[in-house]
Amino acid sequence: MSKEIGITVKKDENFSEWYTQVVLKAHLADYAPVKGLIVLRPYGYSIWESLKSSLDQKLKATGHENGFLPVLIPESLLSKESDHFAGFTPEVFWVTHSGETEIGDKLALRPTSEALAYSMYAKWIKSWRDLPLKINFWNTALRAEIKATKPFLRTSEFLWQEGHTVHATKEEAEQEVMSILEMYKKTVEEELAIPVITGKKSEKEKFVGAVYTTTMESIMPDGKALQMGTSHFLGQNFSKPFDVKFLDKQNVETFAWQTSWGISWRLIGALIMIHGDDKGLVLPPRVAPIQVVIVPIYYSPQDMEIVLSKVSEIKQALTKHNLRVHMDVRDEVTPGYKFHDWEMKGVPLRVEIGPKDIAKGKMVLVRRDNLKKMDLAFKDTENGILCVLDEIQQNLFENAKNLLREKTREVTDFDEFKSEMETGTFLYSPWCGQTKCEEIIKESTGADIRVIPFDAKIQDSKCIICKNQTTIHAIFARSY
Amino acid sequence: MSKEIGITVKKDENFSEWYTQVVLKAHLADYAPVKGLIVLRPYGYSIWESLKSSLDQKLKATGHENGFLPVLIPESLLSKESDHFAGFTPEVFWVTHSGETEIGDKLALRPTSEALAYSMYAKWIKSWRDLPLKINFWNTALRAEIKATKPFLRTSEFLWQEGHTVHATKEEAEQEVMSILEMYKKTVEEELAIPVITGKKSEKEKFVGAVYTTTMESIMPDGKALQMGTSHFLGQNFSKPFDVKFLDKQNVETFAWQTSWGISWRLIGALIMIHGDDKGLVLPPRVAPIQVVIVPIYYSPQDMEIVLSKVSEIKQALTKHNLRVHMDVRDEVTPGYKFHDWEMKGVPLRVEIGPKDIAKGKMVLVRRDNLKKMDLAFKDTENGILCVLDEIQQNLFENAKNLLREKTREVTDFDEFKSEMETGTFLYSPWCGQTKCEEIIKESTGADIRVIPFDAKIQDSKCIICKNQTTIHAIFARSY
Repeated sequence: MSKEIGITVKKDENFSEWYTQVVLKAHLADYAPVKGLIVLRPYGYSIWESLKSSLDQKLKATGHENGFLPVLIPESLLSKESDHFAGFTPEVFWVTHSGETEIGDKLALRPTSEALAYSMYAKWIKSWRDLPLKINFWNTALRAEIKATKPFLRTSEFLWQEGHTVHATKEEAEQEVMSILEMYKKTVEEELAIPVITGKKSEKEKFVGAVYTTTMESIMPDGKALQMGTSHFLGQNFSKPFDVKFLDKQNVETFAWQTSWGISWRLIGALIMIHGDDKGLVLPPRVAPIQVVIVPIYYSPQDMEIVLSKVSEIKQALTKHNLRVHMDVRDEVTPGYKFHDWEMKGVPLRVEIGPKDIAKGKMVLVRRDNLKKMDLAFKDTENGILCVLDEIQQNLFENAKNLLREKTREVTDFDEFKSEMETGTFLYSPWCGQTKCEEIIKESTGADIRVIPFDAKIQDSKCIICKNQTTIHAIFARSY
Repeated sequence: MSKEIGITVKKDENFSEWYTQVVLKAHLADYAPVKGLIVLRPYGYSIWESLKSSLDQKLKATGHENGFLPVLIPESLLSKESDHFAGFTPEVFWVTHSGETEIGDKLALRPTSEALAYSMYAKWIKSWRDLPLKINFWNTALRAEIKATKPFLRTSEFLWQEGHTVHATKEEAEQEVMSILEMYKKTVEEELAIPVITGKKSEKEKFVGAVYTTTMESIMPDGKALQMGTSHFLGQNFSKPFDVKFLDKQNVETFAWQTSWGISWRLIGALIMIHGDDKGLVLPPRVAPIQVVIVPIYYSPQDMEIVLSKVSEIKQALTKHNLRVHMDVRDEVTPGYKFHDWEMKGVPLRVEIGPKDIAKGKMVLVRRDNLKKMDLAFKDTENGILCVLDEIQQNLFENAKNLLREKTREVTDFDEFKSEMETGTFLYSPWCGQTKCEEIIKESTGADIRVIPFDAKIQDSKCIICKNQTTIHAIFARSY
C-alpha cells in the first residue's frame, strides 16, 4: 500500500493529524464546502446506524416513542427561558429571509429543542392521565463552531438524539434521568467498548436551564476528557415559562417535572481515538459496518475457481448468522494491498483463504485488535468466527478500561495537580463545591470539573484550593 | 364519545376540514409555532418509521448505502447549475448570521441536495472502479410555503429521502431511474395499499435540471392528483458543472451519468385521504402503529380478573408474531368510548372480550375497514387474526383501485374535457407534446399534465387542443 493511501503519522507522535487522516482515509467522513460542516460517507454513517438502532430498541422497550420537530424555532419562543437562551445565543444560526422576503420574528436553527418541544407539550398535556410523556427525536442540532473543524468532535451541525420527557412527580422525573444515563452507559460500554465514569456536573458546567446535569465522561489517549452523553433534570424550570401543567388526581393544576437527554456522533470520535492504532481505525465488531472481510488468494485460474467457491460458501454460512461479511474480489490489487486497506478501515476480522489452506481444510484468521494470526478448520467456521468476534469486542473493552485506569490519578496537593495535569490525566481531587475554587483551577491549569462521580469514595478531605473541609471528590481534566 | 373528540364533519361534505380534523384528532401531527411547519406526534411518526424501514431494506438489498449531508449549502454552490438554482431560489430559506456575525456567502437551507452531494462526489470518484456510487439520505428538505399550511401536503419543512447515484454509462443510469420507480410503486402499493400510475413528466413539469423525470401519481377522493414520488434521469446535466468525472476502462476521462429520486411524508397525507372515512383514520395493517387493539369488557371485579387474564394471554400470543398490539385498560372511560376512539385513530382490527365471550371460548373481532363484526374461537387466535389483517390490507387496496378506476376517464374533446374536469377526475387525453398546448389547458382548466403513462395504449389520435396527429396520451388533473 502506498504512503498516500495508508496513515502516514503515528498515533502517539501527532495525535491530531493521525485522527484527521483516519477519518478521511478510512472514508468515514469528509469536509463539506462550508467551514465547520462535515459529510458522512456510508462507512461512517453505518456506524451511526448501528449505534442508533441499539439505543432505539432500548428506548422503545422502556416506553419511549419517536417524534419529529422542525429545525426552525422563532426567536421569541427560544428566549422564553432566559438562562437557556443566553447560553445558546452566541452560536445560533439565524434565518432572516425566505426567498427575497425578510422574516419578521427571525428563526433560529435548532441548537436544541427544549423550547419548541415544550411549547407543543403544553398543548398536548391536560391531565395526569397524559403522563408520563416520553418522546425522543433523532435529528441534528446546529451550533456555529468558530474553532477549526474536527470531524465528529467540533462541527457546526451534528447528528444526535434528544429525549424530552414530562412526569407528574419530581421522583419519577429524577428516576428517568438516572435510568437514561444507565442506558447510555450500557450502550457505550457494550456497543462501542468504551468505559465511562458517570456522575453529576458542577453548577458551572451543567446544562443551561437545568436543575442539575448528569454525565458520562471518558478519557482519550491524549489525556483530554470527552463528554459522552448527558441526562438533565430540568425540574420545573421549563414547565413554568412554557406552561407545561396538568390536572393531578386531586384535580389540582400542577406544573410538570421534566427531563432532557442526548448523545451525539461525537461517540464515533471517541471510538476512533480510543481504539485506533498506527495502522488506522480499529472497530469493535458490534458496530463495524463490515465485521469480517474475506480475502481470497490465488495465482492461477484453476486455483481461483476453487478458492472463490470456498469463499462464497463461507460467506453464506456467516451471513446466516446476520454477520456483515465482505468478499474482496478486486483483481487490480494484490492480497497484501487488501490486507493493509482493510486494516486501515478497522475491519475486526480478516479471513485469508488460498489453495494450500483449502488442501489442509482450514482458513487463516487475522484479528485487527492484536494482529494475531490463527488457523480455523472449515468445520468450525461459524462458531469459531462468532467466538473470535466476541473476544475482540471484550479485548477492546479491556484495553480501554486499562487506559482509563492508567490515566486516572488521585491528587490532593495543588502543585502536584498542576504538574500532573501537564501529563494529560483525569485528576481525582477534593473540592469544596464552590464555583470560585473551580474557576481558580480552570484559570491556572485549563482543567474543568468533568464529573463528580456517583461512586466517589466519600471521605473527609480538604479542598485542593481553599483547604476547607469537604466530602466532594471531583474529576478534573482538560477537555474536547 | 363527545363531539369535540370525534370527527365532526363528513368526508364528502367538507373534505379539507375533515382532513385537518383527522390529522389533529388522531394525534398524527400538530401545527408548530412557525407558519408552514408541523410537528409529528409519535402516532404519526410511527407510520413514517414503518414506511422508511420497508424502503430502506429494499434500498440496501439493491446495493444502496445511507449517508449524511449537512443542511447548509452556500449560495455560490447552489447556483452552479443555473436552471436548478432558478427553480428553487424563490422558496429558499437563507441563513445570514451566526450569533451576531454576518455570513459572507449566505447559506441556503437544503431545498434538495444535488449541488452539495455532487460537489462531494467529484472529490470521491476517480475511476470506473468507484462506480456505481449509490447513496441515499434520510433527512428533511426546506422550501418556504406561502400558501396555508396543510399537514403532510404543504409544509415548509418535510421529511423525505433523497437518493443520488452516479454511473459509468447512460444505460445503467436509466435502468436505475426505472428500478427505483418500480421500488417506490411496490412500496406504496404493498405497504400503503395505494395504487399508482407510473410514467414520465412533461418537459414543463420535470425536475429543474433533469433530462427527464419519471413519476408515480395517485388520485385523491376530491379528484385532485397527488405526486407520490419521482425518479429523475439527470444525464450529465449536473456532472458537467460539478465536475463529476472518472477514468474509464480505456483510461479516458469521462463525465458520469446521474440519477436522483425521492419520496416524502406526503405519502402519509395520501394514506389519510384515500382510506379515511367519516369516523376518522383507516390504517392499512402494514404501517399501522397499533395493528390490533384489545378492549376488555367487564362490570364486576371477579369478571375483571378473568377477562384481563385472557386478554393478556391473547396479547402475548400475538406479540410473538411481531404484531403491534395494544391493550386498552383505561378505567375512566367506557368500552363504547374506547371503540370510537380507536376507530378515529384507524386501528385496523379491534378485539372485544367479555365474560360471556370467555364462557363461549371466543372473542369478537371488528374490522376497521368495513366495520364488520365476527366471532373468533380462542383456539384460532393467531392464524385467525393474521388472516383478517391480510384481508384488511387487500380490501383497502381493492377499494383504492376502484376509486382510481372510477375517477379516470378518457376524453378526446376539449369542451367535454372542461366539463369533466369540474367533476374532479384524471382525464386521459391525446396531446401533441408541445408546451404551448399544455399551457392552454392549464390556463383554461387549472389542470396540469400529471403523468404520461408508460402503459398508454399508443394509438393514432389528435391533440385535444391543436388537433395535430399524435401518439402521446397524457393524464391531466388539478393537483395538490
